[in-house]
Amino acid sequence: MTSLGDRYQAVRRATEELCAPLSAEDCGVQSMPDASPAKWHLAHTSWFFETFVLESAPDYRVFHPAFRTLFNSYYNAVGDRHARPARGLLSRPALTEVQAYRRHVDQAMARLLDDEVARAPVAARVVLGLNHEQQHQELILTDIKHAFWMNPLRPAYCAPPPERRAPPETTATPALLSWHERGGGLVEIGAAESADPGAYFAFDNEGPRHAVWLRPHALATCLITCGEYQTFMADGGYRRPELWLSDGWDAAQAGAWNAPLYWEQRNDGRWWCLTFAGMQPVAAADPVSHLSYYEADAYARWAGARLPTEAEWEAAAAAAAAPGAAAGAERNHLESGWLRPLPAAASATAGGGPAQLFGDVWEWTQSPYTPYPGFQAASGALGEYNGKFMCNQMVLRGGSCLTPGSHIRASYRNFFAPAARWQMTGLRLARDA
Amino acid sequence: MTSLGDRYQAVRRATEELCAPLSAEDCGVQSMPDASPAKWHLAHTSWFFETFVLESAPDYRVFHPAFRTLFNSYYNAVGDRHARPARGLLSRPALTEVQAYRRHVDQAMARLLDDEVARAPVAARVVLGLNHEQQHQELILTDIKHAFWMNPLRPAYCAPPPERRAPPETTATPALLSWHERGGGLVEIGAAESADPGAYFAFDNEGPRHAVWLRPHALATCLITCGEYQTFMADGGYRRPELWLSDGWDAAQAGAWNAPLYWEQRNDGRWWCLTFAGMQPVAAADPVSHLSYYEADAYARWAGARLPTEAEWEAAAAAAAAPGAAAGAERNHLESGWLRPLPAAASATAGGGPAQLFGDVWEWTQSPYTPYPGFQAASGALGEYNGKFMCNQMVLRGGSCLTPGSHIRASYRNFFAPAARWQMTGLRLARDA
Amino acid sequence: MTSLGDRYQAVRRATEELCAPLSAEDCGVQSMPDASPAKWHLAHTSWFFETFVLESAPDYRVFHPAFRTLFNSYYNAVGDRHARPARGLLSRPALTEVQAYRRHVDQAMARLLDDEVARAPVAARVVLGLNHEQQHQELILTDIKHAFWMNPLRPAYCAPPPERRAPPETTATPALLSWHERGGGLVEIGAAESADPGAYFAFDNEGPRHAVWLRPHALATCLITCGEYQTFMADGGYRRPELWLSDGWDAAQAGAWNAPLYWEQRNDGRWWCLTFAGMQPVAAADPVSHLSYYEADAYARWAGARLPTEAEWEAAAAAAAAPGAAAGAERNHLESGWLRPLPAAASATAGGGPAQLFGDVWEWTQSPYTPYPGFQAASGALGEYNGKFMCNQMVLRGGSCLTPGSHIRASYRNFFAPAARWQMTGLRLARDA
Amino acid sequence: MTSLGDRYQAVRRATEELCAPLSAEDCGVQSMPDASPAKWHLAHTSWFFETFVLESAPDYRVFHPAFRTLFNSYYNAVGDRHARPARGLLSRPALTEVQAYRRHVDQAMARLLDDEVARAPVAARVVLGLNHEQQHQELILTDIKHAFWMNPLRPAYCAPPPERRAPPETTATPALLSWHERGGGLVEIGAAESADPGAYFAFDNEGPRHAVWLRPHALATCLITCGEYQTFMADGGYRRPELWLSDGWDAAQAGAWNAPLYWEQRNDGRWWCLTFAGMQPVAAADPVSHLSYYEADAYARWAGARLPTEAEWEAAAAAAAAPGAAAGAERNHLESGWLRPLPAAASATAGGGPAQLFGDVWEWTQSPYTPYPGFQAASGALGEYNGKFMCNQMVLRGGSCLTPGSHIRASYRNFFAPAARWQMTGLRLARDA
Repeated sequence: MTSLGDRYQAVRRATEELCAPLSAEDCGVQSMPDASPAKWHLAHTSWFFETFVLESAPDYRVFHPAFRTLFNSYYNAVGDRHARPARGLLSRPALTEVQAYRRHVDQAMARLLDDEVARAPVAARVVLGLNHEQQHQELILTDIKHAFWMNPLRPAYCAPPPERRAPPETTATPALLSWHERGGGLVEIGAAESADPGAYFAFDNEGPRHAVWLRPHALATCLITCGEYQTFMADGGYRRPELWLSDGWDAAQAGAWNAPLYWEQRNDGRWWCLTFAGMQPVAAADPVSHLSYYEADAYARWAGARLPTEAEWEAAAAAAAAPGAAAGAERNHLESGWLRPLPAAASATAGGGPAQLFGDVWEWTQSPYTPYPGFQAASGALGEYNGKFMCNQMVLRGGSCLTPGSHIRASYRNFFAPAARWQMTGLRLARDA
Repeated sequence: MTSLGDRYQAVRRATEELCAPLSAEDCGVQSMPDASPAKWHLAHTSWFFETFVLESAPDYRVFHPAFRTLFNSYYNAVGDRHARPARGLLSRPALTEVQAYRRHVDQAMARLLDDEVARAPVAARVVLGLNHEQQHQELILTDIKHAFWMNPLRPAYCAPPPERRAPPETTATPALLSWHERGGGLVEIGAAESADPGAYFAFDNEGPRHAVWLRPHALATCLITCGEYQTFMADGGYRRPELWLSDGWDAAQAGAWNAPLYWEQRNDGRWWCLTFAGMQPVAAADPVSHLSYYEADAYARWAGARLPTEAEWEAAAAAAAAPGAAAGAERNHLESGWLRPLPAAASATAGGGPAQLFGDVWEWTQSPYTPYPGFQAASGALGEYNGKFMCNQMVLRGGSCLTPGSHIRASYRNFFAPAARWQMTGLRLARDA
Repeated sequence: MTSLGDRYQAVRRATEELCAPLSAEDCGVQSMPDASPAKWHLAHTSWFFETFVLESAPDYRVFHPAFRTLFNSYYNAVGDRHARPARGLLSRPALTEVQAYRRHVDQAMARLLDDEVARAPVAARVVLGLNHEQQHQELILTDIKHAFWMNPLRPAYCAPPPERRAPPETTATPALLSWHERGGGLVEIGAAESADPGAYFAFDNEGPRHAVWLRPHALATCLITCGEYQTFMADGGYRRPELWLSDGWDAAQAGAWNAPLYWEQRNDGRWWCLTFAGMQPVAAADPVSHLSYYEADAYARWAGARLPTEAEWEAAAAAAAAPGAAAGAERNHLESGWLRPLPAAASATAGGGPAQLFGDVWEWTQSPYTPYPGFQAASGALGEYNGKFMCNQMVLRGGSCLTPGSHIRASYRNFFAPAARWQMTGLRLARDA
Repeated sequence: MTSLGDRYQAVRRATEELCAPLSAEDCGVQSMPDASPAKWHLAHTSWFFETFVLESAPDYRVFHPAFRTLFNSYYNAVGDRHARPARGLLSRPALTEVQAYRRHVDQAMARLLDDEVARAPVAARVVLGLNHEQQHQELILTDIKHAFWMNPLRPAYCAPPPERRAPPETTATPALLSWHERGGGLVEIGAAESADPGAYFAFDNEGPRHAVWLRPHALATCLITCGEYQTFMADGGYRRPELWLSDGWDAAQAGAWNAPLYWEQRNDGRWWCLTFAGMQPVAAADPVSHLSYYEADAYARWAGARLPTEAEWEAAAAAAAAPGAAAGAERNHLESGWLRPLPAAASATAGGGPAQLFGDVWEWTQSPYTPYPGFQAASGALGEYNGKFMCNQMVLRGGSCLTPGSHIRASYRNFFAPAARWQMTGLRLARDA
């Protein structure tokens, strides 16, 4: 079994490897208030360990007193914080200084984690910090993608591998959308509290585990593809208000939306989209991504279907992820290195069950992000981690091709405002039985 | 039994009576984009009958062709509409012309409703139109209250009755907050489809009736009072971010909130608030109103409790409103003429059941406004009535002292954005058992 | 000679007559922050006399204490003021109450002006107040025109007279643009201080009289017409950035300008424009109006000319208005009742001199509004009348068809921000000799 | 005499030396839309030579086709341009690539300038390009200073020299403000057209040379100091609207101004300000800088004086800079290396003449930036250099401690919007005689 110290090192190193293709200048750019510079992510994830683990450790020397404010994201209980939209103005500290900050924190953490007596009381916080860092790994990628989109040169994050456009097992015979029927009744969702916190991690917002009454319904076996989405576009999807929520229609008009984010139409009428390998032609069989909730909802209405609730999704995913279920092997997560959603292979849905539940793209659900029955945020600063955002956001499930595979699970609840498009967000249809 | 024609006349006349204390100038004011001038409400409610009932009637002559656009609120399927924030710029048509419009529509409606053959196919739409008009009756009052608040002269809508400050049965012995325990399990909520639509009306968003699994919980027997809310204020309620949702804290800072809307503190430290009878001292036993969802949520967190879900509320209200339940007699709705929430009398909670479920103030629930399972918006323009707003809003229950008594029921779902404060909105606490 | 009391009555009555065609609802509308409701103008002009003349009079009883704040326009030295963009929210005081306020002030003023001893020390302020009220007469008309433009019904302020489109002496043989050459050298401009202030009035910003060195130049004999302006439009005037100042181009793009304000193109390609008699076809021979400075400047650049400086304009106007000059008889001011600019008759320019210097439209000059050499604002509140606006505005000269004839003179300096279009503003070309 | 090629190399090298203390991350920051990243300045100045000199040269190979748009500042005639507020998002091209771009342009320019035949027709444009680059040298410094101000770490651009706070000849005996009287009459200002353009350079906006009539007046012999400005502050300068232009008061309230930009008050009440050597105590004898026009104007009004007109300033400066005048030797320009304004030495004003006319800080004049009589912008893109900005800006004179000494002259007209504060801007008083 991996020690906590080893796991700490692995996660921290992974973050740095994600930044390796980026220059110091790339790492400093903030393309909109919702996004942060990679340098800020590198520092903030270190700040998290410094603030919530190391500051109470004996002999720990704070790296720089100003960092407590500079790299505080949103913890009012920790004190002041640098204004979020101004994160891109921080040419100092330099990237090299932030890297030194990481090494400083890592060395102190290594000492702490080596010490069995000192480790025990902070272990839960360390695990939280590692999960926190994994969340920022995905954000580093989505934020730099947005920054590159704002640059007319449309830079590539990395070169496409030679075989880039053809993972044989998926594009050869892509799956067709069919329906996976599921009965109704009382189901339990949410993460149960574990007797051994080291054995299993879940964020506080995933619990308490609780009963939900479901009606019979069906879930689509695959994600909606770019080709299907283009049919919606061709059918006037972006010009027909009757397909849209009122706020969604307003957002679409205000933003002049006529396609997913990162898509642009060339003079020959073909659509291209920004990928981590630069601009690429849109591939019909790929899952569509970079949709807002509003677009996902409009698509579902156009298709005569709806989005799943988070309970419907989780019940299905828990079954699929149960011991003996086969889905895991084909997951497309960060570790796969594709950095783009992949088509479902026909073989994956041959058994009638849903494919692509994990990885590829986050799936918008129709569920607003609210506290589960009985939820209580922790007291103190860490209680701010999730609870205070339980309003005006929608739940997404399943992780994406940018999510570390060890970070996702059936009960995982991601959440974004319904107009957000810069995440790797797509959709799966559902319908009443 | 009242005929549909009689009911039409009664509702229409009630709207006009609400405007009687207002001058033509008052009726033209729009104090913010969310509010509309009374003159606009008078015209729009007529537009509703003209557009959805009369336009298909033989021989109906449209009153003014431009009104189709001018008084369309949000129905994309009907066509263009005058910009909402510009409703206050319409000095023409004059109030007298809008009144002539109402008479024109009323005469055509009277002819239609007198004709049994013609009436039958439109009866359901007429009932919808009357419920629509009742919604605007409340809005006429809440919108003019906001307009008067924006006027430094702080005008009164009407003179206070002599006995204004002392409805004997309530202020003599106000009820104290206690807890009404309720078991969990499977409950059904929502309006059932009626075999006879004439017998029972519910908006489409109240159905389908469906099962919800509840956990054991308790509801406060009374609404939170101004006195209780002042304790929250005195305890730093508006200065402690840990009590607030993140968006709520931002809204409170941006709006410099330090008390409910319409409250102002005099030099002697006492709080006054705007009522329909002008500025009046805040009375400790009165239910607090003009709170946003954010404030209601923060209060509940401060109190170590939470807001009820809409299912919890409806289950309790359905029981309280069931045949044999006594709550009805003491309801404070529009017809009572008080135009302000009243304290709960101790006698009302003597039996241990919740009081004030209906009337007084709308009660914020912790439930986002989403479609019930199986909900399908109607096709066509009337499908835009409710369904397209099912995002970014929170559900309120129970009606207020400005809601017509015949308009409210246990399954009724009102909804507003969480930052809205100009409605008659307050709160009741809930807690897990 | 007219007594001051008679003149007071005449000016005050003229203001009220301008409002006679307007309903109370019309008088309450504020269509943008730069414009004010007619009711506000009626009250503010009374506030001016109350604040600067009557408040120091013995026995004067203030009409309403809140009016000091409500109707203060911009005088910091007087104290607080109601927010300018919120003037349209004041349904109270009612128009009738404002009219009573006017009568109250008028009665007190009548008593004061009847008393020779009391009159003398305030005579200068009364004359200032009357000139102030004349300025607001023009604003009442320009502001209601803008309000009517914002109303899709496009109401008319008054019926067009039968002979509306054909004042025989002008449209029969319209003047053609020719050039009035003027030599250079030292000229004096500005209002001289009069030994007898009763004999002659000028605003403080018109002095001190001072020398300016001019180069030889020429002024166009007539105003630019709608027909000439349409040629500019047809030549891509609104699509060629090289014709525009940088700020002007930005304003034109942001506002989607493609014609003067109040113009709209019908389906048949013809242009119509809003007049006080409602929408009317654009008449080619009419002077163009409702141009911003940016448009006037772009037109002049397109025409290979420039706008005159205010010194050039004044030197010509002073000569034209000198004893023996004939221009006065044909002036089109407010009293003419046309309420629209009229074409110049060929006869008016037959002598080679410039026509239309006074009346018709205000003429943008290329001169920013700055203090004349030696200018000192008065101390106290009245020093705020003009001086504090001497930045970011451009000077206009000559009055318009909405300016009272007794209010305008060669030294008169009007000023507006360069993007303002809702005034009766046009242009005359100039060029270097 | 220096060859054009040598001068080209010297100016280009100077730009790069200014960036030497900055990291690539520093060079990428844009702290507000008005400021540009240093990297952008480095590229844009090269773009200027590429676009206006090299593109017509035979054999010139464009470095990167996208740069034509990316580094176009505001030349509509050249084509599209990257949005100004998005200059800080360009992490690519990297600083190293921009440096390669500079070398590429420099090599092509060296070849061109070596070739006498090819040089002649472009010589005037090359000189313009060098003056353009010198303007950007100052902007590199003012823009990075603003970026450092937005960084809570308040970085220093360079270390202060040991003798930083005591240039002996100035602080030992600072000059006291006295008045330099000047007669009135006709003066000529502006740059004359030179028969030999190589001999003398002036921007187009400095001409034509023309006559202006001045009244007798006096100019202060020195700039206003920080100590004098603190007296204004202590006398309520920022709290008294009667001292301010209306727009200025609005800007001050909106920006919560209570001191010059870059000043902050420590807990002990002392003021510090950001310098290129980091935060330093405000020194009373130093000229005050980083004032808006509004603040300079308010100070002058408070002092019972006014700002000079640009004609008054230029007449005095031309006399002072005439052959035999001694001012030059003590000028504090970019080359002095102080990078901050210095006190005037008593000796400098001993003769009664004005000191500090050149260098130290730009001096706000009361003159709006308008075309001189007879001014015609050149046709084509280079006509956009100055002419299209002649609105809504105020003229500044004399250069600053950040201006290259070879770049400034008596006729030089700088201009900024009246609210701008991030330039090295201060003031000198004037008064009527």
